[in-house]
Amino acid sequence: MTIRHSFRNDYSEGAHERILKTLAETNMMQQDGYGEDDYCMEASRLIKGKLGNDDVDIHYISGGTQANLIVISSILRPYESVIAANTGHINTHEAGAIEATGHRINAVDSADGKLTPDMVKLVLDEHTDEHMVKPGMVYISNSTEVGTVYKKDELAALYEYCRENGLYLFMDGARLGSALESRESDLEFSDMEKYTDVFYIGGTKNGALLGEAIVISNDDLKKCFRYSLKQKGALLAKGRIIGVQFLELFRDGLFEENASHANDMAFRISDAIADLGYGFIGTPSSNQIFPILPNELIEKLSEKYLFYVWSKEGEDSSSIRIVTSWATPVEAVEEFIEDIGEIKEMLR
Amino acid sequence: MTIRHSFRNDYSEGAHERILKTLAETNMMQQDGYGEDDYCMEASRLIKGKLGNDDVDIHYISGGTQANLIVISSILRPYESVIAANTGHINTHEAGAIEATGHRINAVDSADGKLTPDMVKLVLDEHTDEHMVKPGMVYISNSTEVGTVYKKDELAALYEYCRENGLYLFMDGARLGSALESRESDLEFSDMEKYTDVFYIGGTKNGALLGEAIVISNDDLKKCFRYSLKQKGALLAKGRIIGVQFLELFRDGLFEENASHANDMAFRISDAIADLGYGFIGTPSSNQIFPILPNELIEKLSEKYLFYVWSKEGEDSSSIRIVTSWATPVEAVEEFIEDIGEIKEMLR
Amino acid sequence: MTIRHSFRNDYSEGAHERILKTLAETNMMQQDGYGEDDYCMEASRLIKGKLGNDDVDIHYISGGTQANLIVISSILRPYESVIAANTGHINTHEAGAIEATGHRINAVDSADGKLTPDMVKLVLDEHTDEHMVKPGMVYISNSTEVGTVYKKDELAALYEYCRENGLYLFMDGARLGSALESRESDLEFSDMEKYTDVFYIGGTKNGALLGEAIVISNDDLKKCFRYSLKQKGALLAKGRIIGVQFLELFRDGLFEENASHANDMAFRISDAIADLGYGFIGTPSSNQIFPILPNELIEKLSEKYLFYVWSKEGEDSSSIRIVTSWATPVEAVEEFIEDIGEIKEMLR
Amino acid sequence: MTIRHSFRNDYSEGAHERILKTLAETNMMQQDGYGEDDYCMEASRLIKGKLGNDDVDIHYISGGTQANLIVISSILRPYESVIAANTGHINTHEAGAIEATGHRINAVDSADGKLTPDMVKLVLDEHTDEHMVKPGMVYISNSTEVGTVYKKDELAALYEYCRENGLYLFMDGARLGSALESRESDLEFSDMEKYTDVFYIGGTKNGALLGEAIVISNDDLKKCFRYSLKQKGALLAKGRIIGVQFLELFRDGLFEENASHANDMAFRISDAIADLGYGFIGTPSSNQIFPILPNELIEKLSEKYLFYVWSKEGEDSSSIRIVTSWATPVEAVEEFIEDIGEIKEMLR
Repeated sequence: MTIRHSFRNDYSEGAHERILKTLAETNMMQQDGYGEDDYCMEASRLIKGKLGNDDVDIHYISGGTQANLIVISSILRPYESVIAANTGHINTHEAGAIEATGHRINAVDSADGKLTPDMVKLVLDEHTDEHMVKPGMVYISNSTEVGTVYKKDELAALYEYCRENGLYLFMDGARLGSALESRESDLEFSDMEKYTDVFYIGGTKNGALLGEAIVISNDDLKKCFRYSLKQKGALLAKGRIIGVQFLELFRDGLFEENASHANDMAFRISDAIADLGYGFIGTPSSNQIFPILPNELIEKLSEKYLFYVWSKEGEDSSSIRIVTSWATPVEAVEEFIEDIGEIKEMLR
Repeated sequence: MTIRHSFRNDYSEGAHERILKTLAETNMMQQDGYGEDDYCMEASRLIKGKLGNDDVDIHYISGGTQANLIVISSILRPYESVIAANTGHINTHEAGAIEATGHRINAVDSADGKLTPDMVKLVLDEHTDEHMVKPGMVYISNSTEVGTVYKKDELAALYEYCRENGLYLFMDGARLGSALESRESDLEFSDMEKYTDVFYIGGTKNGALLGEAIVISNDDLKKCFRYSLKQKGALLAKGRIIGVQFLELFRDGLFEENASHANDMAFRISDAIADLGYGFIGTPSSNQIFPILPNELIEKLSEKYLFYVWSKEGEDSSSIRIVTSWATPVEAVEEFIEDIGEIKEMLR
Repeated sequence: MTIRHSFRNDYSEGAHERILKTLAETNMMQQDGYGEDDYCMEASRLIKGKLGNDDVDIHYISGGTQANLIVISSILRPYESVIAANTGHINTHEAGAIEATGHRINAVDSADGKLTPDMVKLVLDEHTDEHMVKPGMVYISNSTEVGTVYKKDELAALYEYCRENGLYLFMDGARLGSALESRESDLEFSDMEKYTDVFYIGGTKNGALLGEAIVISNDDLKKCFRYSLKQKGALLAKGRIIGVQFLELFRDGLFEENASHANDMAFRISDAIADLGYGFIGTPSSNQIFPILPNELIEKLSEKYLFYVWSKEGEDSSSIRIVTSWATPVEAVEEFIEDIGEIKEMLR
Repeated sequence: MTIRHSFRNDYSEGAHERILKTLAETNMMQQDGYGEDDYCMEASRLIKGKLGNDDVDIHYISGGTQANLIVISSILRPYESVIAANTGHINTHEAGAIEATGHRINAVDSADGKLTPDMVKLVLDEHTDEHMVKPGMVYISNSTEVGTVYKKDELAALYEYCRENGLYLFMDGARLGSALESRESDLEFSDMEKYTDVFYIGGTKNGALLGEAIVISNDDLKKCFRYSLKQKGALLAKGRIIGVQFLELFRDGLFEENASHANDMAFRISDAIADLGYGFIGTPSSNQIFPILPNELIEKLSEKYLFYVWSKEGEDSSSIRIVTSWATPVEAVEEFIEDIGEIKEMLR
């Protein structure tokens, strides 16, 4: 049997067709290079409008690891560290990118991938003199690497704690769309600049060919940021191609539409799985869900669908990671749900 | 009067339409991420075929500064330096990207932007003990930042000198297409892997939306290169989008076609300017030419065309930089030539 | 009451008087700089003799953090990491020195401060592709930061595991003297070069004014090491002053004599404390011991002696860290023991 | 014939006997580690007094390259560079130490080793956007690597230019004693903190075993400096040993006495050589002089004295570098002068 669909990740396809269309339409217009083109400027105008704040700086770059390493290294002094959840992308899947810029990560154990003021305090309490690094900022992801999302009061409390303790708060928004459209979240897009010093809006995993938009609201962090981009190889000659995509994402709601579709697909699956009586790691909240299924069922399912097996859960069960996206076809989801039901029946 | 055309650079437009078309056609195929997709593999097969050597490693990344900093930092030991012409891109326009990875650049004065064994020897002779850095590699650009190109015997001699002296030779090919299609060059594409240890093929300036292909022929330099890509934020989740573009560039000659058009446009302009009796900085050899014109003529010309004024040449003249590309319309070139003639006439 | 003695650390005094004497005697001899003097050479001859191996490279530098950061950064490729116990000095008290050279530390929980092949395997099993760092070496301390020491079979097993798995083994020997003279250790000085790729011999904490001797036995790691020293600011103009001190330490047994005295003082204290019925964190093995005492006793004791309170142990007790050295007077130890006994009696 | 004396450098001997004496006297006093001992504090009190300013921070470290790399990397943002004379120690003899911390050096040609506002302006004029590094500070040496010294108006003008242009001014004072005692200088010790943001006082080359004292007068640069020291391996456990030496150097004039003796010895030699009719590279100004002598004379002289041949000067002559120090015996100087005269006579 051939593979019907891959639920492995949210970057298996190219871009939303409207993005390709706008790329084609603007293709032959001569523009300035390095992000100083009309499209980047227009995209920034749209994003600022949506944030309700003109006083932010916006920069467009090609990927998430790049965004993380540039933001973090541009902020910290050489002896400063960044606090992150142990599950944080910078702590697990960036090949030492942050350390390569000279900075230590203070990883904190977090069961749900989120950080709280108490967790941050633990690190501060341990780092009190010059024989240790000096924590300078906090890194969080929303949605997190395990699919959870921050609520407004959680984020606000963390931001306030950071401000009181001289720490900058940086949010990795590789999957920000899905986080904001989550049925578990009461955060709005405009809260992002209110409750962080800097964050980025993920394009790659929400319908763009590539591209993330870094948004800096804290004035301290704005100065000379383009030097950092250039020095790390992130200032694309044809910056326009990211500008065009964010322009399209934010022109009339494609960003939300894409994320909303991804979440709907995930929730359809998680609701169906719950109905079959299976549980999850965490509460399904965004486009990454982690159902716990019998190993036999997983094996059977994997003949037709691609996904990652995440963790052993007891003797005969495991969790798997199912990722949906703007591109996930409704039909594939329906068939997937049906197949799980049938396999369950079959294995009885 | 409005601006008729910009000759400022070769990245003012998007991508060649055939590239956009293939991006659209492959868009919804689910693929593995991080450069392990079918398109990257097929592009590499094509490039290896054209090089006549299957034993090279090929990696696709988003831009030239990124290519330079990753290749150089992945090769050198911490105390080693890279030798470059003073005009070299890494020495002038990369915001200290190489130094930011910990390495010193030994810059050598070069009138024509090229390096010779004698110039490299000067650096080696000066660096003899551990109180100075240890030169570990040589960086060249082809075409150079001043539009010149290497001839086969020049490149072969430099490569041999490097091998004899324990130096790796790395060629920045941001404008490799134009160099190879130059009427001043006798190098062929397959010579690149013969006479360098590693080089890259520029896509961004030769018709792609973005993308450079790093080609490693020296076995010493292949090991764990993907770790370096990941660590520097260069491993794109949708690596496919660069793969697709190089696939199209190398499928049936688009790479050469684009470069050839760019050169033709430059040579038409340089030949016409020469016919008018004006000289050049260097011999026009690629898609960047540097005519020396009366300041009055330049001023008049700049009302209708965009270009950079390069250097003062005597009291009343200056050189300007004219850059053509795959996208330069024949009509714009013809009009530009006509306008120069008319302005000259007018100013008599 | 004034403080009678500090047991806070093993670097509270200057140098052993024989070292000062030899410094004075050699003071006015003109010598080459940067470690190429007669004294460094003679010291190396003595150390090689004691190791029974002439084929090692020896370099003298000023301190332990410097030794660690230079050895580690000179060995690892940019994407490689170093595995260490969570208690390891590089992981706790070097202000991010290793990360500042670009490398991640993979910290492993270790109850006794030592590493075993199984612990190292845990890290290797987790790091399997280029999205994570690649472990390249293992760092251990002997004695460890919690006073424990390696036995011969433990070290041999770890070294063999490292060799089989492509990892270099580096031993931080800031307190190597005390480790080797430990009554709990069966390792000999000559084992150091047999069972590590590189280690250093601590002078600062064993009677020198300052200075550590890095000994490299693995040929791969010898090349160009002086470049690394120079680049990190570790090549002292008057390298002679460290050479002279190691010459004196290894001329006729002062190194062992100093360490042996430090251990004797520690064991006298630990034996006496054990006799009083108190326990320890770990088995007292070297010049750092961690008795667990009633808080009341600790408070009283701290009026007359300086030491660090280490950890809470239950409601009414804590562990304290007592460090002895070559300079610890027998009288101070005897008085300390007597005082503990008296305070215990008093508090009944 | 055996070598009578080496004039190769000013670090051929150990330390001034008064320094050794004080080290011995303070040796067994228990003190806090890491530069927080009584001797460092007392030395700082003395230096502040001599500067006439209590509001400076003083840190003691082991050597000049270390001082340079720590000061520079602690000040600059990642994309900033440091401007230096091409002859500057950081640009020639530190094995890429500055670049290894991530920063580019903008080297400016300087005939006499000194920088002027005009030279600095040249660099600023060239660095105007984010495609190049952003100059953030200026590094000078006093005395310079070619033996010249700054006059008060020169230093004041440079400092003012730096302040007006947002550049910090850092003075490498490895040979500050000799510079201040120079008969060509009108600068006083207290001017150092007036006309720089940070400077260091060289101990190693002025009679100490080792040690430099970094003095920070600009408040911006004081914060968290000890973190930088620790992270680079510069915070010595027995920081006392440098404190003791600076205490002795500044207790009652030993610092000036040593430098003054070195200069006297150099001037005796340069005056005698001038009397013989020979010239110099530059004006003899400090303890490094560069007489131009016939090659035959140099060859003969080198049978009895050690010194470096510096540069070819015409067909039959060369310059040599003669370095004197606090330890240079008057007898050796007198004999040297006599020998030159005799050899000159002999060669007629």
